[in-house]
Order: sequence, then C-alpha cells, then structure tokens
Amino acid sequence: MELAHFLPIARGDEPADLALRNGRIINVFTGEIIEADVAIAGDTIVGVGPDYAAKEELDLGGRYVCPGLIDAHVHIESSMVTPPQFARAVVPRGTTTVVTDPHEIANVAGVDGIRYMLAVSEGLPLTVYVNLPSCVPATHMGTAGAELTAADLVAMRDLERVTGLAEFMNVPGAVLGLPGSLEKLVAFQGCVIDGHAPGVSGKWLQAYVGAGPGSDHESTAADEMLEKLRLGMYVFIREATAARNLRALLPAVTPSNGRRCAFCTDDRHPADLLDEGHIDYLIRLAIAEGLDPITAIRMATLNGAEWFRLRDRGAIAPGKRADLVVFSNLKDFRAEMVFAGGVLVAQDGVAVGDWPTPAVDDSRVRDTIHVEWERLDLAIPAPPQSPPTLGGKAAPPQSPPTLEGKAAPLSPPQPWGGRRVRVIGVVPDQVVTGHLVEPAKVVDGLAVADLERDLLKMAVIERHRGTGNVGLGFVRGIGLKRGAIAGSVGHDCHNLIVIGCDDTSMLTAARAVGDLGGGLVAAVGEEVLGFVPLPIAGLMSDQPVETVRHQMDALLAVAADLGSALHDPFMAMGFLALEVIPTLKLTDRGLVDVEKFDFVPLFVGE
Amino acid sequence: MELAHFLPIARGDEPADLALRNGRIINVFTGEIIEADVAIAGDTIVGVGPDYAAKEELDLGGRYVCPGLIDAHVHIESSMVTPPQFARAVVPRGTTTVVTDPHEIANVAGVDGIRYMLAVSEGLPLTVYVNLPSCVPATHMGTAGAELTAADLVAMRDLERVTGLAEFMNVPGAVLGLPGSLEKLVAFQGCVIDGHAPGVSGKWLQAYVGAGPGSDHESTAADEMLEKLRLGMYVFIREATAARNLRALLPAVTPSNGRRCAFCTDDRHPADLLDEGHIDYLIRLAIAEGLDPITAIRMATLNGAEWFRLRDRGAIAPGKRADLVVFSNLKDFRAEMVFAGGVLVAQDGVAVGDWPTPAVDDSRVRDTIHVEWERLDLAIPAPPQSPPTLGGKAAPPQSPPTLEGKAAPLSPPQPWGGRRVRVIGVVPDQVVTGHLVEPAKVVDGLAVADLERDLLKMAVIERHRGTGNVGLGFVRGIGLKRGAIAGSVGHDCHNLIVIGCDDTSMLTAARAVGDLGGGLVAAVGEEVLGFVPLPIAGLMSDQPVETVRHQMDALLAVAADLGSALHDPFMAMGFLALEVIPTLKLTDRGLVDVEKFDFVPLFVGE
Repeated sequence: MELAHFLPIARGDEPADLALRNGRIINVFTGEIIEADVAIAGDTIVGVGPDYAAKEELDLGGRYVCPGLIDAHVHIESSMVTPPQFARAVVPRGTTTVVTDPHEIANVAGVDGIRYMLAVSEGLPLTVYVNLPSCVPATHMGTAGAELTAADLVAMRDLERVTGLAEFMNVPGAVLGLPGSLEKLVAFQGCVIDGHAPGVSGKWLQAYVGAGPGSDHESTAADEMLEKLRLGMYVFIREATAARNLRALLPAVTPSNGRRCAFCTDDRHPADLLDEGHIDYLIRLAIAEGLDPITAIRMATLNGAEWFRLRDRGAIAPGKRADLVVFSNLKDFRAEMVFAGGVLVAQDGVAVGDWPTPAVDDSRVRDTIHVEWERLDLAIPAPPQSPPTLGGKAAPPQSPPTLEGKAAPLSPPQPWGGRRVRVIGVVPDQVVTGHLVEPAKVVDGLAVADLERDLLKMAVIERHRGTGNVGLGFVRGIGLKRGAIAGSVGHDCHNLIVIGCDDTSMLTAARAVGDLGGGLVAAVGEEVLGFVPLPIAGLMSDQPVETVRHQMDALLAVAADLGSALHDPFMAMGFLALEVIPTLKLTDRGLVDVEKFDFVPLFVGE
Repeated sequence: MELAHFLPIARGDEPADLALRNGRIINVFTGEIIEADVAIAGDTIVGVGPDYAAKEELDLGGRYVCPGLIDAHVHIESSMVTPPQFARAVVPRGTTTVVTDPHEIANVAGVDGIRYMLAVSEGLPLTVYVNLPSCVPATHMGTAGAELTAADLVAMRDLERVTGLAEFMNVPGAVLGLPGSLEKLVAFQGCVIDGHAPGVSGKWLQAYVGAGPGSDHESTAADEMLEKLRLGMYVFIREATAARNLRALLPAVTPSNGRRCAFCTDDRHPADLLDEGHIDYLIRLAIAEGLDPITAIRMATLNGAEWFRLRDRGAIAPGKRADLVVFSNLKDFRAEMVFAGGVLVAQDGVAVGDWPTPAVDDSRVRDTIHVEWERLDLAIPAPPQSPPTLGGKAAPPQSPPTLEGKAAPLSPPQPWGGRRVRVIGVVPDQVVTGHLVEPAKVVDGLAVADLERDLLKMAVIERHRGTGNVGLGFVRGIGLKRGAIAGSVGHDCHNLIVIGCDDTSMLTAARAVGDLGGGLVAAVGEEVLGFVPLPIAGLMSDQPVETVRHQMDALLAVAADLGSALHDPFMAMGFLALEVIPTLKLTDRGLVDVEKFDFVPLFVGE
C-alpha cells in the first residue's frame, strides 16, 4: 500500500475499509493478549487499538485474532496438487504464508519448474515464497531431469518472492568446501540459507553453520535441536506426513530460546492436510503437549517471518499485511475466519469468495515421462555359480560417483558375484531402509520375485532423458501378493519406480504411468486397477485437492487388496530411490550403499 | 574471512590461531551459560565447545565470555572527541560496535561531515556503523550549515558500514506525509529506519510506525515503552549524560518482550564515559535494578545486532566476528579483556597493542566558524512605551516557518510590543525549557542583563554561512554573576551561542570561540579565562579523550567560579537553541515558541 494512502487513514483523518471490533489480539511482540480493534485499509493493517472509523465493521465478539500462520519449509509438490489447490487446503486452516522449496519439480524440470511454481502461485490468498533448491541433483548416483548450477541459482536470487537458498542437503559439500557447494554458498553469503543437517554434530556442525546455513528442520531429538540452537541456528520443528518430530523436540523449547524456533511441515500428503491440517495442527499439538499458546502462535508467525526477513508480516501491527486468523479457543486452535491481504478468504474451514486462478502456460512442466517402452526389459539374468562371464544391462557402474562433479561414464558391468542378492528392507513410516541379503529365487536363469519371502522385484526406470537406464533389484516390506505398483514420484530424481510380483504386471503399471504423463498406478497382469494422474512434472495433479485425496484413497484400497499392509506403499516406494538416506537404495543407475556412498552389485559374491 | 580458509579450521583439520580455554560462555541464543572453549582464526570465531587445537592458547580460568557490546544509537560528536578517541574510551569498557548517527557534524558539514566520520572510523577496534541523519536541518527556524535531501541520503545508502536512516525526528513530517519527509521514508522503505517519537502515542504513533520507523529511544516511561513495543518497535533504553531513562523503563521489560529491547547512550560527555562507562554501565545498572544478567547482556548484544541486521556479530558462534568480552562477576559487569576481530585490544580497562590511527584529510570539517566579527552587535534596543516606531535587527521574522520547505524570507520586523520580555527558563538536567515573561531592565534605551533576577543575555550567532543572523534574548537559570560563556556546540544547527552578564564579556567569549575554530570558552571583560578547543566542525577536539576531559573540568571550574551553579552550564546552553524541544528556544533567526512551532517577539505586547 502506498505510504501516502496509508498515512491519512492510520492517523484517523480518513476511514479505514474494515474494522474488526472487539477482538482479543495475540500480540506476538510482547506476548500479551490485548482487547482491541484492528483497522484495515486495502491489504494493510492501519491501526490496532484506537477507535478507527471504517466503511465496514465486523464484531468479533471477543474472539482471538492472531497473525496469519507461516510454514517455514514445505515442498508443495508433496501435497500432489498445484499451489492454487494447496492454498485451498491450507488457507482455511489459517496458513497465509509458506516458504516452499520446489526441490522436487526442479529435479524434473530445473529452472522451468521453479519459474512455473512462482508463476502459478502469483496472487493467491496464500503468499508463496520460494527458497531456491540448493542441491539439484543431490548426487550423481541417480539421473535427474535437470542440474542447477550456482549461476542458475544466482540468476533467480533477486526475483520477487525468492527468499534465498533452501535446505543445503550436501553437508559434506559444505563442510569440506567442495567446488560446486562452495560456489553456491559463497554466492549466497548474507542471504537466507536454510540448512539440512540430520544428525550432524560437533565440529562438522560448527563448520556447517559457519558456512552459511542458519536454520535446520531435521532435528529428531531434543539434544540435537539444542546443539543447533546454541550455534545460532533457527530450528524448524517439523510434522510431516512421514517425519514427525514435534513431540520429541518440544521439551527443548524454553522461554529463552523459543524466539528462535518455528514450525514447518516439509512434506504433507492430501489426506493429512485435509484431515489433520497444516500449521494449525502443529499449534494444537504443541499446546496439547503443554506449550504456552502464545509461544506456539509466535513460533507459527513472527519467528519464521524474522528468519526469512519477511518484515511485512508475522505480527498484527500498523503497516503489516492484513493476514489474520480469528479463532475462539486458545487451547484448541481452529481457524474460524481467515483474512489474507485484508480480504476474508475462508470461514469455518471453507474457502469463501472468488480466489484468483493464475492462467499459466504449464507446457514446460507437462509431458515429462520419456521412456522407450519397446526397449524396456525388466529381466534379471542370474549369474552362473562358476567363474563369472555374463554381463547384464542392469549391472551398476563401478567408477566412483562424485558429489557434485560430472558423473563418470557407465563402465562395463562387473561380472555377477553369485546367487545371493542384496535386498532393500522397507522400515514402515521411515525413509531409512535396511540392507538385507537373501538367496535369489532363480527361474529359467532369471532372478524373480519370491512372494513366500516377500521379496518383490523393483525397477527404477530413468524417465527424463530417455537414457534407457534401468536399475533392478529386490525389496522386502511392500507386501504385495499379486500385481504391481508404479509411480513417477521417486525422491529426489523422480524417476519411474515400479515394484511387483511379475514382469507383466510391472510393465503394465509402468506403461500406465507413462500413458498418464505421470502418476501413481496399481495393476495386475495387463489390467490397470487404479491410478492417480500426476501430469504436472509427474508429481502433481491438475485436479482439486479433494479429488486427489479420493483418487488416492481408492488407489490405496487397491494396493491393500493386492496385499500390501502398509498405510501408503506408494509413499514408501517413493523414498526407495533416495540415495542420500541410508542404507540401501536403488537408482536408475544401480544399487547404492549409502553408507559407502557408492554403488554395490545386486548379487553378492560367494 | 574467506569461507575456504574458515572451513578446514572449523572442522578441525587445521589449527585455529587462538583458543580461549575454560570459559563460561554467555549463549545469547539460548540464554544459557556453557562451559566451553572459543576457537578463533583471523577475525572470526571458528568453533565453540569442541576441543580445537590452536597455535596460541589462553586459559580463562572459568571467567565469563560474552559477545562484544553494541551501542544501538550514539552521536559520537557528543563525546567531544573523534571516533578513534571515542573508541579509546569505550572499547576498554567492552563496546566493540556502535551505530552512530552523525547528525551533529552533518548539520555543520553535510555530506562531507558524514564521509569524514566514515573515513576516520575505518579499521578501528570499534566497528562504527553510520545511520544516516534523516532530518538535517530539523526545521527551517534555525540556520544550519547544510541540508540533506532524500537524494543526498540515497546516494550514501549503500556505502559500506551505512545501516540505514537514523532517528526520524520529524514526526509531523512522517505522520502528515509532508513532501521532504515522505520522500525520504519512501526511499528507505525496507531498510533500517530508526525512530524518534518522544511522547507520541495513539493514532499518530500508529501512523508513524507504519511509515517506516521501527525503533525508538525516546521513551521516558514504562507505559510509553510498552505502547511502542506492542506496535512492533524495538525500544532502545537510553542512559545519556542528560537523558537517563533506564530506571524508569526497566519495569516494562519482560521475558516475553525482552528480545526487542536494546541499550543506547545517545549523548555521553567525556567525564561520564571515563567515570561511569558506556554500555557496560547500562548493564551494571540494569542488573543492579534486578534484571537477569543474561537478559541484560542479550539487550547489549544480540538484540541490537538483529535490529540493525548485523548478522556477523552479537553472539558467540562459528562464523561470527571474534568480538568478545571476558569478565568475572555476573552481578558487576566489568570488562577484563576485550577482543575485537580476534585481537586482544584492551585489558583491565586499558587499551593494549597498536591501534590504527586512520590518516584522514579533515580539511573539509575544519574552519567552520564564519562570522563577520566587525559587524557583530549584541545590543537590544528597547521599544518605546508609546506606539511603536523602532525596529531592531534582532526582531524575529513573522512569516510562518515551514517544516521542511524553504524558509520564508525575513520580513520587516514587527514593532516592539512593550517592555516585558520573554525569558528562556533553564530546567536543570533537562533539555526542555520554561517560557517566562519578565519586565525588561532598560539602560540607555537598551535591554540588558539583570543579575539580581538572574536574567542573562543570550545570543545565537549564525556561524556557517556568514549570513549575519543573530538571535538575541534572555535566559534564567545559567546563574553567571560575571563574565560570559560561549560555545559552538548548539543543537541542532550548532550555531555559536553566547550567554553573559555584559556585551564585552560576551563578545570576548564569542570571538575566542571563533579564534579556536570552534570550542567552548569562558571570559570576563576582555580576558579569556578558560577554553576547550573543538576544531573539528566546532564539535570535536582533535586531542585524546583524557585531555578533553581535563580541559572540560578546568573550564567548568571557571564557570562555577563565575557563579554558575549548574553541573555543566555549557551542556545546558547547547540545548537552548534546539527549536524542536519545548518550550521557548532561541535560534539565529529569533525566539521560537515550540508549542506554537513559530517565532514569537522578544518583547511582549502590553
């Protein structure tokens, strides 16, 4: 709002547009609750307290008013819907600002993906800030759709709504000062740099903090959180769909350090957004766990705004953006009215009014599945018992991967070591996996799934560049008894992953994903039994969040019917290719032993 | 420090330069005291806690270590010494960073004055940040040596060590959106803008805050402070030589709002700096008044750093500048060792080592007294009792002053209204004055001093541009029984002020100030009895702070001998021309009734 327009209203010479009367204002600066009016003009708060005349009035009848909530770190792609639909899910919950890291779409579509997220979130009731993905690709042990150099990032640094550099996952790159990492960190010195340092401690943490990252959302224990706070990091307490840290971390929050803690959701699936909620859920949970309500609200508002230098929001004060949440119960936070930029945009959990739907050319983030289906072969030839002579296309390359340099070219496959195979062990509701070794079941010279031992076959099919790369392996813990599941959501490279009991079902599921232009599929034999289309980069639907949620529920029912006992086998599958999280993972280039940070053969030498 | 140099030391692969062992670290992030080492390389802290190898070690034997102290708002000119000498006074007290507002020298020398202050403070153990003077001149009812436009300020905005815009004193200009003010505020939106809103409240304060100023150091009561905190202002608690607010404000500081409070000294004279101290004095005082020591230290370090966005300091953590204070007693804070940029620069209150003395061309801030002495006449012709015919050069102009527009040209003097005069009433240790009316003592047709009633004559002689302007009036409360005092320190225009019992003494004192190129003088008849030379802009000595302090002590003894009972009549005199502080003031252009914000005649109509 123009200052010349603001001043006469703020000083009382001209009426405000809207006065919220008889509120109890949560003052996040002083920690007080103050009975007052809030006067609004345009998108801006013009006054708090004094009796402002206004063209329109609303009596809050003593209800509480707090600033709009802020999610300090979220991958909107994980909601499986586009930012406008994500906004429809979270704004009625009280969230009016998110800082998103478009890391997923950037791995598929690079700069185009980031620009798409900025464009499609323009003008929403939800202000979407973008923190630039710092590590695309995370490593070169998998094939992503794009690579972001320091120069790419610098070119976007000053765009409107860009806050800085997102979770710097390459901890060794930062601490060891490896070329690509160092270049990015130096380029963003003085800017916001979010950290990502799970379990990092001691001198490595000191070096990491000194290198620039000043926040972290990966603490899982109070001690870990406290060590980070002491070094000056802001700590974002996370409740994602998978990673749920609030209960473990809350004991570390004190009156003295609480101003350096914020809330984030990281990755939340549609059902969790719609059923549990968003940042409002973290506030409720924190208060239920014993945190002072004003401290909880401050963590959800002012603290994040301060870290991200968003000086126009995070508090109710003159000159701030009129993002407000009205609610009745301090112990059970539920947004009853949500104002965004001075406009009532949601009431009783439902969006109201006409929300803008940005018309954006999304052609550069569609049609992202590029696989030569006729060449695709999922067979795993078993090696002979005797000295090895046989090579197979799925064998992993042996040259060492580099952290951020160019990957070495594929070298000739190593001979099979024997007829025992490495198996990825799924750990329910975790992204870490086990590294198992099992005898291979060999039929007609081919290693195949063995349902008796819950050994399913898994393939990671490169889908960005048409390289023909296919990583093949086995997994335990998905639990299918027949058919296959497939999907184009596979962190972080987001190649096409398929897991199944037989090759026919797997090929059917995989091809269906391709036919959808991306999505999640369940199939048996040559029949597709369920699917969720995700045509935007293979990650997001173009449908409303409620539709996606129902599609997803139906698909999960099919997966359960096929035998999986997991709450969400697609989510579990989506993390089995994430080669930076221990212990054993499968990329399009082969099996990765994350602890060795190197490829390992599928068959174990005997 | 280069990141590539920092990292191997921080992660422990190379030794640090210095390790401070066995400290008790004040962690301002978490509010804890942690037993740890601090490892330093170059000017930077590389690690806190883990056992770092180092080329040099220092055993602190359990003493406390806190970050170097920060003064959030200070006019270095008020110390009457240049920045290098000011540093010698405050660094041994533990202050390693100040944000100075060179408002005084800017009123004399404009942009040249500001650039001089930046140049002469380069490379000191004290980091001197400059907040640009926002209101030069404060009004057009006095004649300053320079005017700073929005364009002048914008041209300096991005200079190294410039933080933003300093105390925005023109509250009506901001709230009413008057042209000059609005232009400056718009130009600095998004930057640091310090406020200056004594007693401003209600809707005007809301408008003022929304206009940009986000801090204030003019609160004198807890209620006033709390109103400002609630609107999101940072509050700097001030203990100046004259204005002492800490005891009154401390009750408003709570655990919940304390993170938005900082300390400042504003104006401190040499004796107070040397005897009481600097920010260390505020810490001691606050703790003695019952404030938690860590909260007090946090107000003196991290909080100010956060407001001014000084992200490299204010805390002890890897990557921060190694500005550190070592002390022994948490209840009686006294700096025993002070490190600035990793170097021990003071011990037991005394500077150690070789401090740089910046070689700066100061020719543009010397020779600033421009008065045509032969034209100077201090006589005040008294008007006749009957219908007025006589005019006098000292009569005030009648056209209304404008806030920041050009002053109207001097209009013909109004006829005298009678033989009662308006008299400025000095209020000891305050900058506000009384507005008295007394019968004039008339001798040979001239109004003169009347020692019986402590009515001394006062003149404000324009000294920047040689306009010949002289404002004449009377003052009660200085208490001289003979002679005169004069000085070139006269807020904010810093014209030459002289107060005395007779014109001869006044002319002697005034000319002596001129002969010194600026300074403070006491004289009787044609004899100069004492003086302090202030050749830098007429505001600052070029001598060491101890020398100035002794010169000042001697001069004050002379003033006492001449009959003044005031602690410091020169300081009182220096504020009698400040036409923005109530009630009656005298500028080179005449008497100002500050409440009317307009000139008034010396003689009251009968």
